[in-house]
Amino acid sequence: MTRTAKLPYAATLDKSPPQQPFPRPMPHRNGLSTRARRDDGETVVSVLMAKTLAQPDLISLAAGFVDFDSLPAETTAAAVQSIMSHPCHASAALQYGTTIGHPPLRQAILDRLCQADGHTADEAGLSVDQVVITSGSNQLLHHVGEVLLDPGDIVLCAAPSYFVFLGLIESLGATTLGVASDEHGIVPESLESTLEELDRAGRLAQVKAIYVTSYFDNPAGVTTAAQRRPALIEIARRFSRHHTIYVLEDVAYRELRYHGDDVPSIRSFDAAGDTVIQAGTFSKSFSPGIRVGWGILPRDLVAPVLAQKGHFDFGSANFNQTVMAQVFAQGSFDTHVERLRDCYRKKLQAALDGAEEFLAPIDGVKWVRPGGGLYVWLTLPEAIDTGLDGPLFDRAVEEGVLYVPGEVCYPREGAPIARNRIRLSFGIQSCESIRQGIEALARAIKRTAR
Amino acid sequence: MTRTAKLPYAATLDKSPPQQPFPRPMPHRNGLSTRARRDDGETVVSVLMAKTLAQPDLISLAAGFVDFDSLPAETTAAAVQSIMSHPCHASAALQYGTTIGHPPLRQAILDRLCQADGHTADEAGLSVDQVVITSGSNQLLHHVGEVLLDPGDIVLCAAPSYFVFLGLIESLGATTLGVASDEHGIVPESLESTLEELDRAGRLAQVKAIYVTSYFDNPAGVTTAAQRRPALIEIARRFSRHHTIYVLEDVAYRELRYHGDDVPSIRSFDAAGDTVIQAGTFSKSFSPGIRVGWGILPRDLVAPVLAQKGHFDFGSANFNQTVMAQVFAQGSFDTHVERLRDCYRKKLQAALDGAEEFLAPIDGVKWVRPGGGLYVWLTLPEAIDTGLDGPLFDRAVEEGVLYVPGEVCYPREGAPIARNRIRLSFGIQSCESIRQGIEALARAIKRTAR
Repeated sequence: MTRTAKLPYAATLDKSPPQQPFPRPMPHRNGLSTRARRDDGETVVSVLMAKTLAQPDLISLAAGFVDFDSLPAETTAAAVQSIMSHPCHASAALQYGTTIGHPPLRQAILDRLCQADGHTADEAGLSVDQVVITSGSNQLLHHVGEVLLDPGDIVLCAAPSYFVFLGLIESLGATTLGVASDEHGIVPESLESTLEELDRAGRLAQVKAIYVTSYFDNPAGVTTAAQRRPALIEIARRFSRHHTIYVLEDVAYRELRYHGDDVPSIRSFDAAGDTVIQAGTFSKSFSPGIRVGWGILPRDLVAPVLAQKGHFDFGSANFNQTVMAQVFAQGSFDTHVERLRDCYRKKLQAALDGAEEFLAPIDGVKWVRPGGGLYVWLTLPEAIDTGLDGPLFDRAVEEGVLYVPGEVCYPREGAPIARNRIRLSFGIQSCESIRQGIEALARAIKRTAR
Repeated sequence: MTRTAKLPYAATLDKSPPQQPFPRPMPHRNGLSTRARRDDGETVVSVLMAKTLAQPDLISLAAGFVDFDSLPAETTAAAVQSIMSHPCHASAALQYGTTIGHPPLRQAILDRLCQADGHTADEAGLSVDQVVITSGSNQLLHHVGEVLLDPGDIVLCAAPSYFVFLGLIESLGATTLGVASDEHGIVPESLESTLEELDRAGRLAQVKAIYVTSYFDNPAGVTTAAQRRPALIEIARRFSRHHTIYVLEDVAYRELRYHGDDVPSIRSFDAAGDTVIQAGTFSKSFSPGIRVGWGILPRDLVAPVLAQKGHFDFGSANFNQTVMAQVFAQGSFDTHVERLRDCYRKKLQAALDGAEEFLAPIDGVKWVRPGGGLYVWLTLPEAIDTGLDGPLFDRAVEEGVLYVPGEVCYPREGAPIARNRIRLSFGIQSCESIRQGIEALARAIKRTAR
């Protein structure tokens, strides 16, 4: 959850942004690589963690942890027990696997994707050879970044976006460039005009991917509208003049739907199968401690991603993959997800009720009501700077609540950075603590707005 | 286990080696990063795997797998059961952990290292804050590479060295440069003269690290002699004029000692604590499927390595770390290692007996008798090229045995590449198969030597 928290800013598209290091740099060490020196500073996460450690009674609505009580202890124990009671299965699970991952798990992931998207693998032109297992979806995002990006390259991102992803792209020396996003997700017209502007500025050849968290995104909680999904692919293909511009679809929160019906993934609209990279994970839907993620890759990217993974770990832990495959084999995954949805539906409601009760009365405070996920994204009055160095943050800590400042969720270029946003995570706190945390936040906002 | 198998060669130190791609390149795709394009070719591992798939009755003395039957199924099941039966422990294990890793496991690793090296943590100037958990030691090696190396930088390596490590360094655009190694490990005088030569050539500032597998190395099976260990640190420090030249000590096989007494690690001689990076793993000593490794880092490198890990996965799977900590807490690690040693001692003996019986009669074939590890390193008559494209390899496959050609284990520059070497892995085969495999190899050598 590290992101080098360089102070964000908006810049025009035709010049490189100035480097503004975070104010507390580490001593320069000239033996480090260029890449390591890009990280020369404290991270958002380390600042937030230091606050938590200094004041243990803080209600953290910042941490991206999942609900504790619903973690699948019994299901996991049963799966391990079942594997370990067959000597052959036990030894196989404890041995090295392959770089691409455990075949039964890859098949289960493909089957589930096809079922959710309403087609067969054949209809979708997909095969299990395109499913790669990683240590969480973040590892897949990282491998994709390494495979596509040289310093100076560009990834277009919904503004706001998942801040760890933004940090990893920047750590590779590439640029994140924001595209407007509204309550229906990334705006195709804005994507198109951004690409046109980059083309005019002679920078189109640097654009390698478009990053979209398509369900209940982090941080804004919005889902890309169904009618926008094929448009993203059409635009990406149209501008793929120098090379393929991939649509990198992050579906980390797809299973965490509490209201309404599922929509087919962006991947499902990629008829040629050469444009969309889909990254998924069981960290949110099952267990982040087991940390199994995956990628569904266009055929051309399978070998390059596996080559990177070969250098890195030549395959994610086989034991964990076997446990997840067993969870599917014993049919306990769906049961678990249903239980999770019930749990988080209540927490989301607690957050929305808390917002209604304590924040609605404050002029200029508003939010989108997400249908799933783990976040509520607040907009405060324009004048309130929610940043780590702004007036609200320390007051919120004094009042007993921690949040993620919206500014860290914005790409480095392109769409302007809204400095009056807040990400609230409701995953780990109880309903009562969520309510208390929002009440504390309301007190801090009132003190600041005065 | 991927390494891009570019054809190896020896080159002088004062010019860059020519790029010689492996003969079966993938089509050029101009959207890929420079790093991905470095991997544009088939790997040794994929060639070996294709052979295995095409001929399933092959005896593979190539694969680096561990013994199947001794994998710790019961111990793992007991550890998981114990964790899962306490709701609090279960939830903690299934939740996110921290980037640096699970504190009880880091403490257990530090305690074990200190005990083996015969000092306390205080005496060694070490603290648990310097212990970072990774997904196998390979991940640590990768993070260290990312943190230290820019394209053109140099890592000095014993010649021969672990070929996956060589591949990962080359994938970063850095150069591996071989230093002579004999039956007592890397030769300090050769290290010194190599550094002097690099200094004269104006390349000293590019040298970032010296890589040594200090116990039963991969592939040569040799252990760095005790008296050479402090010398490596002294030399590294003496040449650290531009920046620290780190000694990267890989202790993956330390626990796999079947004969003789343990020797203190190179790390134990680093009184100032600023020179040695130690990489370790439970993959060989416990289970590669659980895949938990670690690094003991100089203080200056902790933050940069954690920043990379933050971008990558913000912490290795907490579940696996908790299982390993529980294995230590229940005291079952040592019992397991003892059992492993008994198992592998017999396999090593089978390999040495087989070599004595079938290979000793062939003129010019010799080998070092390792005291541990998983490999026997053969030297064949000078005229026999053991390479993938040489005459022996296909004959060996015809006779029913697969090996790793020595040529892939040599750094790209520096020490000359011996083309008449073979790495035999005895980890996964039964004693009988080891014997049969060596007998088949002897037949192939005789046919080739004729």
